[in-house]
Amino acid sequence: MNLLNDQNLTIAKIAPLLRRKQISPVELTEFFLERIQRLQPALNAFLTVTADLARKQARQAEKEILRGKYRGPLHGIPLSLKDLFYTAGIRTTAGSKILRNFVPVENAVVVDRLFETGAVLLGKTNLHEFAYGVTSNNPHYGPVHNPWDLKRVPGGSSGGSAAAVSAALGIASLGTDTGGSIRIPSAACGVVGLKPTRGLVSLDGVIPLAFSLDHVGPICRCVEDAALMLEVIASPAGRSSTNWPQMGRLFSRPLRQGVKGIRVGIPKQYFFDRLDKNVRGYVLTACAILYQLGAELREVEFRGMKDAAPLVGVITVGEALSYHWKWLQSRARDYGADLRERMEANRTQRTVEYLQAQEKRRIYTEAFLKVFESVDVVAAPTLPVLPPLIGQKEIAWGRTKEDVRAALLRMTRPGNLTGLPAISLPCGSTADNLPVGLQLIGRHYDEAVLLRVAYAFERATPWHAMFPPL
Amino acid sequence: MNLLNDQNLTIAKIAPLLRRKQISPVELTEFFLERIQRLQPALNAFLTVTADLARKQARQAEKEILRGKYRGPLHGIPLSLKDLFYTAGIRTTAGSKILRNFVPVENAVVVDRLFETGAVLLGKTNLHEFAYGVTSNNPHYGPVHNPWDLKRVPGGSSGGSAAAVSAALGIASLGTDTGGSIRIPSAACGVVGLKPTRGLVSLDGVIPLAFSLDHVGPICRCVEDAALMLEVIASPAGRSSTNWPQMGRLFSRPLRQGVKGIRVGIPKQYFFDRLDKNVRGYVLTACAILYQLGAELREVEFRGMKDAAPLVGVITVGEALSYHWKWLQSRARDYGADLRERMEANRTQRTVEYLQAQEKRRIYTEAFLKVFESVDVVAAPTLPVLPPLIGQKEIAWGRTKEDVRAALLRMTRPGNLTGLPAISLPCGSTADNLPVGLQLIGRHYDEAVLLRVAYAFERATPWHAMFPPL
Repeated sequence: MNLLNDQNLTIAKIAPLLRRKQISPVELTEFFLERIQRLQPALNAFLTVTADLARKQARQAEKEILRGKYRGPLHGIPLSLKDLFYTAGIRTTAGSKILRNFVPVENAVVVDRLFETGAVLLGKTNLHEFAYGVTSNNPHYGPVHNPWDLKRVPGGSSGGSAAAVSAALGIASLGTDTGGSIRIPSAACGVVGLKPTRGLVSLDGVIPLAFSLDHVGPICRCVEDAALMLEVIASPAGRSSTNWPQMGRLFSRPLRQGVKGIRVGIPKQYFFDRLDKNVRGYVLTACAILYQLGAELREVEFRGMKDAAPLVGVITVGEALSYHWKWLQSRARDYGADLRERMEANRTQRTVEYLQAQEKRRIYTEAFLKVFESVDVVAAPTLPVLPPLIGQKEIAWGRTKEDVRAALLRMTRPGNLTGLPAISLPCGSTADNLPVGLQLIGRHYDEAVLLRVAYAFERATPWHAMFPPL
Repeated sequence: MNLLNDQNLTIAKIAPLLRRKQISPVELTEFFLERIQRLQPALNAFLTVTADLARKQARQAEKEILRGKYRGPLHGIPLSLKDLFYTAGIRTTAGSKILRNFVPVENAVVVDRLFETGAVLLGKTNLHEFAYGVTSNNPHYGPVHNPWDLKRVPGGSSGGSAAAVSAALGIASLGTDTGGSIRIPSAACGVVGLKPTRGLVSLDGVIPLAFSLDHVGPICRCVEDAALMLEVIASPAGRSSTNWPQMGRLFSRPLRQGVKGIRVGIPKQYFFDRLDKNVRGYVLTACAILYQLGAELREVEFRGMKDAAPLVGVITVGEALSYHWKWLQSRARDYGADLRERMEANRTQRTVEYLQAQEKRRIYTEAFLKVFESVDVVAAPTLPVLPPLIGQKEIAWGRTKEDVRAALLRMTRPGNLTGLPAISLPCGSTADNLPVGLQLIGRHYDEAVLLRVAYAFERATPWHAMFPPL
């Protein structure tokens, strides 16, 4: 079992060991179940631990691999799911009181994909209630704690998933991202989170927050793992799960091609305004490292980006109201105060306001896409700040203050509005051991290039290998 | 010039004559310009006649054809456009006072397509104001008259286009259809109107009524012409206008394959409720003719179809409000009374109402698609009634009455909600010389089969060859 150590807990490193039968999926699963049992009280990352299912799936994977039926890189890999994905026979709470006892009869499409390729489910992770917030401070199931500092939030809404991956309670997790809910907790917990191009991954069987902004994507310990996960969950037109082996390696194969000649855009506006000085320093250093690796750096204009906050806000609350409408009439008191107040305050939102926001979104997206005429990837921080304390309400910027929620969402919302693929990966660590995240944004359906740049940066830096002091 | 007679005014018959230089595009254009000049006072089908442009395009086509540069079936074909399509340098009023003097600088994508393939533009046709109605009783430019009975409406909103094709003021026209606006006037005027699958034809440069329900499609004198037009305006993924010659004949080639083995569904509910007895008789006869031609007839269940009216209503008014919002504040009195009242009455429509209608639309569509598990095409009337009188408000059904607008839209709205392709073609004529339309609805992107069934019916019946007594 000495094969399992801090440096080894990635799909990229474990999968070959599983394939060569040097580790058994059963041993591996027990290793993680033991860690979950030990660390769950401090982190509160899980809402449901599916130990029995995990052991059963692990035994099945072991049997198949021993018989030479190796399904691919996820075969025998223990992972978790944000508790927003339908899992047949396993309760799916969305972190809510309302769905506390909801047990779906079917899996989400992406869950079926993971199971078909032999993944092992350790459990369902804690989250911000109904994914509608970014602290994962859950009023019904308790807050998730950041593995790097238990007094701090892990970000959200996929906070349990990011905390679990960060603390090695499983190798990877699946999250969702409507305004930043994969990237924010990935940055706050020092792991890799990928929000793929809108449309690339099925939303079928995922409890919606805002259907026109929702995305599904992986949270992992390294960039290669994100590529391997994406290969399983992505749904190119006409692809069925049965031709997975043929379709594989679409994203992971080009990873090692380097960044020579890749043009990286550094935004002149918006993305470098009001930053914590650690964040600014590390993100600019990351750009410098990409330059040293052979990328070209170009300053790019980003005007009108401030519209992202009101546009995502209007669209999200309108679509959330539509989904939650019946419960708002009958069970309003079963929502946490933040959700209830946000929805109640907007219950008379008019169609014209909603549709004009969608129209402005189209114009915003067209403006954003202009940047890609001169660069291939945009570099920015994922968060303007370090992970806030649990319960903290505001961030101080000199004499002015910014709401924590607004601050955490500030850098990520443009990715949801535009549907562009965006990844967050570790790019630094403060004197207090708090992680800093680099956000890279690519062209629509150009995950291959986005992941290539992220991979090159990761290989050249030590940040992905850091382990929280638990 | 004796080649030009009632029986010959289709693309299918004229194009070979143009190609073989037996007719000149210039002669042909003059023939139609003369008819327009003569019949426009009675029909009011045109808002703008582009005689100079038509003559220029016709001379150009003549030159190219004489030099052996034949572009395809639309080369030298004179046609019209509903005045909702952007035409560079030519005013585009949308039948409104508000856009009375609006001159676009660009063509709609489909207009570019038509021009690239050598079509000749005779003019822009009259319509229901902003396409938001079905009588084409235009308060700013006067009503369009039905060529079969000048006291009656031509249907709408593409009323001028259907009247123009019916009266042979041009060989074909392009219309739009949000709740039935291509099929309704085609049925009322005794011509062929095709609403293609939503997404198959570009909406770029078309003034919207309701962007999520709008469709562009051809209005023609026969089914083959609709197929030829569709081949030019359709936009399969990855297709550019430059590979048109290679892509051609996608829809027209399979036309002659007959209907042997094709399963035609006859709805048990909704589509045969409350019909004028002429309509019922002719549509059932049409089904019998398809059976004689080798098609299989099957009764099919259609439950919940009544929801189409409120769903299309809610979605249309919400999206229309969003587009018209600024003018509603500043120029409300410049709208006709019907539009102004409809929009004013709904100006506070809430996002939840709109989005829940969209969600119900999804469920409605899924239910509708079930029918195609047992049939290939559904047969129904296009209109439950004969063309109403201009100014008529209600239809009497025994002791009950139905609003004219509601009646005209009753059969066509399901096609817009579902995005399914639907065609209307002539299937009868009353003792008063009023046309009856057969509606066929097919699978998504299965225009080839839809057109094949329509073509087989047309070849077996005399109705397409009838000419209004003008």
